[in-house]
Amino acid sequence: MARSFAKLASGTMDSFIMSLVDVAARPGMISFSTGLPDNSLFDIEGLAKASDEVLREMRGDALQYDSATGYIPLRKRIAERCRKELGFDATYEDVIMTNGSQECFDLLARLFLNPGDRMAVENPGYLGAMQSFSAYAPEFIGIDVGPEGADADQLARAVESGAKLFYSIPNHQNPSGNSYSESVRRSVADIVRGSQCLLIEDDAYGELGYSGRAGRTMKSMAPEDTVLTGSFSKTISPGMRIGWMVVPEWMRAQAGRSLEAMSLQSGTLCQKIVDRFLQEHDYDEYLQGLRRSYSKKKDFFLDIMEDELPDCMEWNNPKGGMFVWLTSPEGTDAMRIFNAALDRKLVVMPGKPFHVRGGENTLRLNFATPTEDQIRAGMKALGDACRDVLGI
Amino acid sequence: MARSFAKLASGTMDSFIMSLVDVAARPGMISFSTGLPDNSLFDIEGLAKASDEVLREMRGDALQYDSATGYIPLRKRIAERCRKELGFDATYEDVIMTNGSQECFDLLARLFLNPGDRMAVENPGYLGAMQSFSAYAPEFIGIDVGPEGADADQLARAVESGAKLFYSIPNHQNPSGNSYSESVRRSVADIVRGSQCLLIEDDAYGELGYSGRAGRTMKSMAPEDTVLTGSFSKTISPGMRIGWMVVPEWMRAQAGRSLEAMSLQSGTLCQKIVDRFLQEHDYDEYLQGLRRSYSKKKDFFLDIMEDELPDCMEWNNPKGGMFVWLTSPEGTDAMRIFNAALDRKLVVMPGKPFHVRGGENTLRLNFATPTEDQIRAGMKALGDACRDVLGI
Repeated sequence: MARSFAKLASGTMDSFIMSLVDVAARPGMISFSTGLPDNSLFDIEGLAKASDEVLREMRGDALQYDSATGYIPLRKRIAERCRKELGFDATYEDVIMTNGSQECFDLLARLFLNPGDRMAVENPGYLGAMQSFSAYAPEFIGIDVGPEGADADQLARAVESGAKLFYSIPNHQNPSGNSYSESVRRSVADIVRGSQCLLIEDDAYGELGYSGRAGRTMKSMAPEDTVLTGSFSKTISPGMRIGWMVVPEWMRAQAGRSLEAMSLQSGTLCQKIVDRFLQEHDYDEYLQGLRRSYSKKKDFFLDIMEDELPDCMEWNNPKGGMFVWLTSPEGTDAMRIFNAALDRKLVVMPGKPFHVRGGENTLRLNFATPTEDQIRAGMKALGDACRDVLGI
Repeated sequence: MARSFAKLASGTMDSFIMSLVDVAARPGMISFSTGLPDNSLFDIEGLAKASDEVLREMRGDALQYDSATGYIPLRKRIAERCRKELGFDATYEDVIMTNGSQECFDLLARLFLNPGDRMAVENPGYLGAMQSFSAYAPEFIGIDVGPEGADADQLARAVESGAKLFYSIPNHQNPSGNSYSESVRRSVADIVRGSQCLLIEDDAYGELGYSGRAGRTMKSMAPEDTVLTGSFSKTISPGMRIGWMVVPEWMRAQAGRSLEAMSLQSGTLCQKIVDRFLQEHDYDEYLQGLRRSYSKKKDFFLDIMEDELPDCMEWNNPKGGMFVWLTSPEGTDAMRIFNAALDRKLVVMPGKPFHVRGGENTLRLNFATPTEDQIRAGMKALGDACRDVLGI
C-alpha cells in the first residue's frame, strides 16, 4: 500500500543537479553542468599505495568500527591545518568527520532549525545545501551575492529578523565563482558574533585558490559563532566521501549524538587511507599541482568563450574553484539557452535553481570536468544556442 | 554564544553503546559489550587486492561521484541475492545504498514519522536504531520479543492504534539473539499487509545463521509493505560503511530525494571495492567460514559460561549472530552486575537500555569480539561479579 510521507520529507526540494548527472552521462553528451572535479588529476598511484599499506599494516583494525566522530589521527591533521592555514585554533575534538560535507548541512539544520525558523542563504547559493536545509522546512532569506561577496546590510536585517543560520561559501563560491572581500568577511563576522545566528562557513573550494587562499576565514574572526565545513571531495576524491566540520566546543556533544543517530559514523577505512596519503605527500605541493591545472584549464575555457560566445553574453574570471558564471542580457531567459544547448548535446546548468529570487538570465559552467576537445566543441554549441535564442 | 538546539535534536536519545566503545578501549579492559564483529575474520588480502585492482583499472572513475543511490553493479548483485537467497524479486533500482544501515533508519523515520506519530519497536530492541528514530520524536510502542520472536497480538494492537512503522530484527536479534518462528513471520506479514504500518525488516544478522537462514523473509510475504535493510558491516567490514535498503517501487523516488538531501550519496569507492571482492570470491563459501568460526566461538563461550556463572543465571543458545542474552533472577538489578564487572575490568552491556519497559535483570554479551583467553578471564570476572551482587 502506498503510504503518505511525513510533512518534512514531502517538502524536501528536488535537486536539479543530480538529475543532470544522469543526462550528462548519456553517450555523446558534453557536460559543463556538474560540480565534478577533474578526475584525471586524482593521485591514483598514491592512494592505491596508501590503501595497500593501511590494509596490510593495520589489518582488521583498518576495517573495524572506529570512534563515532572519526579517525583521530586524520582529525589531528585537519586541526593542525586549521591552525597553520585557516588562522584559528582547533583540537581534534572540535573536528567531526562526516559522510561528505552534505552530511554537515543536514546535521546543522537538524541541530538548529525548528520548522518555520528563518535562515539566511546566499542568492545565488549552493543548491545541494539548500536541498539539505529544505528538509527542515525553514523560511529562506536570500542574501544577494555579488563580485565582493554577500550583501552585509541584507544579512544584518536577516539576523535582526531572527535568522538562526547563515550558510555561506566565501571562497570561489558555487555557483558564481565569486569570493568575499576582506571587508565583507569582517562585516559578516561582526554581524553573527554574539547573535542568535550561527554562521556555516563552507570552505569546499578554499584550497583551490589559484594564487592562494582568497581571504581570511570568518571562523578565525568569530570562532564561537561559526562552524567551518571542509571536504576532500574537490581535492582528493568525492567517492571517498570525506567531509568534516570544525565546531565550537559548546556544540560538540550534541553534534556527536546527532551524528550517531544519523549514520553512526562515516567511512573510517577511507579516512585511514587519506590520512596515510597525507602522511606520505606534501599536501601543499599536491594542491599546487591541482591549482595550476585548474587555473590553466580556466584560462583555456575563457579563451574559447571569448572566441565562441556572442558579445552580449557576460561572464566573470574566477580566481579559484571550478565554475564560471555566465549572464545573458537582462530580461532574457537562460532556461531557453539551456534547452537550446541540450538540443546540441551540451549540458549546462541554469542559474535560476540556485536562486531564492531572480537569476533568470544566469548559467553556471563547470570548466573542470570537460577535456580541451570537449570545451572546444561544447563552447561552439553554446555559442550557437545563445545566438539561436537571442536571435542574433 | 551558546545557542539553543532545535526541539527534535534535543530529544535525541543518548546511545549507551558508543560510550561503552570508549570504556572498552581502555588498556587492560576485556569487552563483551560492543556489537563489533571479530576483525580477525575479515579478508584483508582479498580486500587489498580488490582495492588495488579497482583503483588501477577504473582510475579516476573509482574516486569520482557516482549515482546518488549507489554503484549499480553492486546493487545488481544485491538484487540478485534477494532473488536467490531472500525469496523475493528486486531490481537494482529497488536497492538504495546507504552509509551503513543506520542511515536507512534515519531515512525511513524521516520519510514516515511526523512528531508524535506512533511506531512499534521490539522490546528489547536494537538501541542504535531506536536512537535514530528518537530524533523524530515518535511515541514508541514496545512489542515484547521472546524465544519465538515478536508478540503478534501486541503488534496487531499497535497497528490498530495507528503505528506508522514497525522496526524488527527477525534473525538472531540484537540484543537477544532470538529469531522469529515461521508462524510469527507469517503473522507479522499479515498484520502489516495493506495497513498504514510499514515494516522495517533489519537483516543485519540474516547471513550469520550457523546452519543457514533462520527463516523466510517477511519482505517476501508482504513485499509492498516492507523495507528490508542489509549491511556488509557484520560480514565484510563495518569501517567501509556499506548498508542498503530494498524498497517498494512506490517509495523509490522520495527515498532517493531524501538520501540526496541527507548525504548526497554514500562512499562509492568502498562499494566498488566490495563489488570487486564479491566478483572474485564465492560469497556463500566466505560466509560459511564466518558462520563456522562464530558458531565455534559461541560454543566455547557457552562452555565457559557453564563453568563460571552461578546456576541462578540463565542464558539462551543462539543459532546465529554474535550475542548471548543473559538473565539474572527476577527482581535483581543487572546494572549492579554491570558495575561489579566493570570493577573487575570486564565491560558487559546492560539489557535495560534496549527496553521500552522492563529488562532490569538482563545483560547482552558479545562473544564475537573477545579472544579465547579474554573469554576465560572475562567470564571468571563475570562469575565473581554475579556472586558478589547476588550474595552467593
